[in-house]
Amino acid sequence: MKYCSLCGAPVEQRVPDGDNLPRHVCGQCGTIHYTNPKVVVGCIPRWEDRILLCRRAIEPRLGLWTLPAGFLENEETTIEGAMRETLEEASARVEVKDLYTLFNLPHVNQIYVMFLGDLLDLDYGPGPESLEVDLYREEEIPWDRIAFPVVEQTLRLFYEDRRRGSFGVHTGDIRRLPGEGRVYDIRMLKGR
Amino acid sequence: MKYCSLCGAPVEQRVPDGDNLPRHVCGQCGTIHYTNPKVVVGCIPRWEDRILLCRRAIEPRLGLWTLPAGFLENEETTIEGAMRETLEEASARVEVKDLYTLFNLPHVNQIYVMFLGDLLDLDYGPGPESLEVDLYREEEIPWDRIAFPVVEQTLRLFYEDRRRGSFGVHTGDIRRLPGEGRVYDIRMLKGR
Repeated sequence: MKYCSLCGAPVEQRVPDGDNLPRHVCGQCGTIHYTNPKVVVGCIPRWEDRILLCRRAIEPRLGLWTLPAGFLENEETTIEGAMRETLEEASARVEVKDLYTLFNLPHVNQIYVMFLGDLLDLDYGPGPESLEVDLYREEEIPWDRIAFPVVEQTLRLFYEDRRRGSFGVHTGDIRRLPGEGRVYDIRMLKGR
Repeated sequence: MKYCSLCGAPVEQRVPDGDNLPRHVCGQCGTIHYTNPKVVVGCIPRWEDRILLCRRAIEPRLGLWTLPAGFLENEETTIEGAMRETLEEASARVEVKDLYTLFNLPHVNQIYVMFLGDLLDLDYGPGPESLEVDLYREEEIPWDRIAFPVVEQTLRLFYEDRRRGSFGVHTGDIRRLPGEGRVYDIRMLKGR
């Protein structure tokens, strides 16, 4: 951020009075421009013993598989967002039932909120951001081609819970470790 | 938003190619400036049969009582944010244990994420954003002077669960209804 979005003057980075973190502050009109984490919402769309996965048509992780999920929009609830993303990415209608996971991804300033969903019919297909969309049984999941650690962890919890016969709500932190490789630290708070 | 925060040129509101919502787009450098909901994090700090409430020293709702909570910062997890807010607003150290509620407030583009917490000691007091901080038993809660409907609803769920002897995770939507008065529509998804 270089310029004030309200008056167009240059901004400076400094700790405002009464604050304890540096912010972008306009040198002319004094507006403090806060930046905060974004919420990603999505769901696990279920049909009998299968779930719907989407193969990404866009970067990052183009060509890899993911659950339908995307940024929550203003004036939208998390459930509305999860349903919208499922419609946009998989052209699929779901009933979104229960909160399932809340993951913190502090290295990318994101919070992932995932729900359990039930497909309403089998009329689905790739939206503009997907190359293909298909239903998978547990033994068919392409574990080595899942786009994001948060999606892999969500799926692993899902199958553990399904075997136990009870779905909790899971909270955890996923951090990318410093270095070259894609190595992540995953810590679960607790499942209930 | 009137000016591009990257190049300082005027922005226009239009639906970018491949999108379906109007965004602020820079007429010069083409940057799309998204705005998204913010996450508010906090906790219910418990000590035996009492909980810690803060009386607000700032607008909105100056002088009314609330739970320690505030905007999640970048590079922070929701639990770290809940602990930080409790320290800032009540000078209190808590162990934050379990996710308790996730509320959508789409009319103000906010998601409230509240945890159950346990005070580590009785060394607390008002931070700069609080007039006073005190421990309350259920029968002492100032129900008619609670600052926000989301805080009142969180407290009501807490005491219901405590009577049941089991704390679930609760999700719901709170919307302010159109009109003059402070009238809110509260819908719970489900408690588990």
